[in-house]
Amino acid sequence: MDKFWNNNLEIKNELDEVIKIMEKRIKNSNRSIRNILLDMIRNSGKMLRPAFVILSGKFGEYDRKRILPLAAAVEMLHMATLVHDDIIDNALIRRSKPTIQAEYGKNYAVFIGDFLFSECFLLLSDNITIENLKKVSKVVSRICKGEIGQFESRYNIDITINDYLKRIAAKTAALFALSFYVGAYESNCGEKLAKILGSIGYNIGMAFQIIDDVLDYTGEENVVGKPLCNDIRQGVFTLPLIYSLEKNKDEKMIALLKKESYCEEDIKRIVEFVQENGGVDRSKMLAEKYTKKAFDKISMLKDSPPKQILIEVTSKLLYRNY
Amino acid sequence: MDKFWNNNLEIKNELDEVIKIMEKRIKNSNRSIRNILLDMIRNSGKMLRPAFVILSGKFGEYDRKRILPLAAAVEMLHMATLVHDDIIDNALIRRSKPTIQAEYGKNYAVFIGDFLFSECFLLLSDNITIENLKKVSKVVSRICKGEIGQFESRYNIDITINDYLKRIAAKTAALFALSFYVGAYESNCGEKLAKILGSIGYNIGMAFQIIDDVLDYTGEENVVGKPLCNDIRQGVFTLPLIYSLEKNKDEKMIALLKKESYCEEDIKRIVEFVQENGGVDRSKMLAEKYTKKAFDKISMLKDSPPKQILIEVTSKLLYRNY
Repeated sequence: MDKFWNNNLEIKNELDEVIKIMEKRIKNSNRSIRNILLDMIRNSGKMLRPAFVILSGKFGEYDRKRILPLAAAVEMLHMATLVHDDIIDNALIRRSKPTIQAEYGKNYAVFIGDFLFSECFLLLSDNITIENLKKVSKVVSRICKGEIGQFESRYNIDITINDYLKRIAAKTAALFALSFYVGAYESNCGEKLAKILGSIGYNIGMAFQIIDDVLDYTGEENVVGKPLCNDIRQGVFTLPLIYSLEKNKDEKMIALLKKESYCEEDIKRIVEFVQENGGVDRSKMLAEKYTKKAFDKISMLKDSPPKQILIEVTSKLLYRNY
Repeated sequence: MDKFWNNNLEIKNELDEVIKIMEKRIKNSNRSIRNILLDMIRNSGKMLRPAFVILSGKFGEYDRKRILPLAAAVEMLHMATLVHDDIIDNALIRRSKPTIQAEYGKNYAVFIGDFLFSECFLLLSDNITIENLKKVSKVVSRICKGEIGQFESRYNIDITINDYLKRIAAKTAALFALSFYVGAYESNCGEKLAKILGSIGYNIGMAFQIIDDVLDYTGEENVVGKPLCNDIRQGVFTLPLIYSLEKNKDEKMIALLKKESYCEEDIKRIVEFVQENGGVDRSKMLAEKYTKKAFDKISMLKDSPPKQILIEVTSKLLYRNY
């Protein structure tokens, strides 16, 4: 597993169990599905979503037999969306390894994603209330709408900050919020506390995606684990660029962006434009604002070990470089 | 809707309602998703699976408010698998129209399929018992495994009849069985009757897929609604060819099949080989055998209007030309 949880052994150990649950789920599938997915599971990233299900569960009557399968289901759902996203983005590398679509082809990627969806729902139907299962379905539907929206607004220089925020709320923050909410609710935290935790998840998710989009402009390729400037190459205009265009409607830059296909020299010019016009800095400030909102809600929680972990993680996510 | 149900107005009217439910579900999605899916829904085929949910429901305490959304969910699930299958098969035409992947690209097709999956589960979680929801997830998982298995055994001349039957059980018959089972169970038919109806569905499904595979060799393109010999073009060896190879291990034919890419002349030779070696006739006989098994189970049901419809439909499906 990723080094992200090395300082929180309690969470790390639970996440190791989540990995075992996922491995067990795919044990009986075709050999090729099994091998592909075992690779993917063993190369899992920070596993934030399942960690948040667990962490949130610890605010209530934590029952690992119930919570860990839920955490596994949420991670499988996330994996499904990654596998399918990589098809759309034509992504070759993720977490420093070839993507499924790059290594095995789009055909495998389609069915591996579907298989993960079905296994997610199978795990859920054994371990969740029907109301929350409905919430999960709604989030999947939102993620799809968000991804289609993103795909459709490629090369659209009229995209607003509001459009962007709506898009990342759907494609990222909704699942973060759900992870927190479900972990809490299914641990009998009660609706009120579950909603507060869900809202913390939402704000962390918004900050997380903004930082991700910033790292696509400013990160180091070998640290981030995937090629930089991937969004812009696909025609996806994210916050740093949107802010920069808002500040400076440079005609040459707009003409360049309208070309709808960029060479390396174009990419370099776009990155420079974004840095010169403060797009990165303003984006970081907005991520900080969402993080602050998360902290405001966290401060409403009574002191406890999971609260302490939550504080550490929230701040670590804001100041990460991968 | 397709003319298939023109003689059964009772079912046809219910299916019209199913279409309305589906249309309502997609009303609030992005404009492009909506337009693409409205087209697809209005060009729906025989709608066998939702019809079987309804028909099976009529063996119990039929409550259309409960059964019709289930029927819609099952059809959306089927649509999702079609959209994703068409990506794998590189299919250009289905039901006499361009496929989504042909018209809008693979990217749209991936997310449209995912969106349909999520809407299916959303509909289900409002209208089904958790046990049956689990059954649905299991069937989705089986369909994926069946499709991956089919994809992996392309160009494999050692594929056995047993492999083939396992594959079509997973990719087709399981959902037919489920449609019957769920309709009956959710109408309080009781476990025993639901299982009999499920088993009727399974046998109809097996016969249906075999006939589909026969039509790929013998049908008329404008009647079937998709290009002929599509399976063989993709390297998918179906029952007519497997039977023929079992009878005649013609070295030249085996060498041709091993080429893993066929020109029109090759396709013609394969079709002739299958016809000369009785592959089509033996396949039809096996479809009849499954149909007979279905009839044996149907005869266990007490006489009723839905039983009468079931008899007509089962026989009509065996002797169809599209």
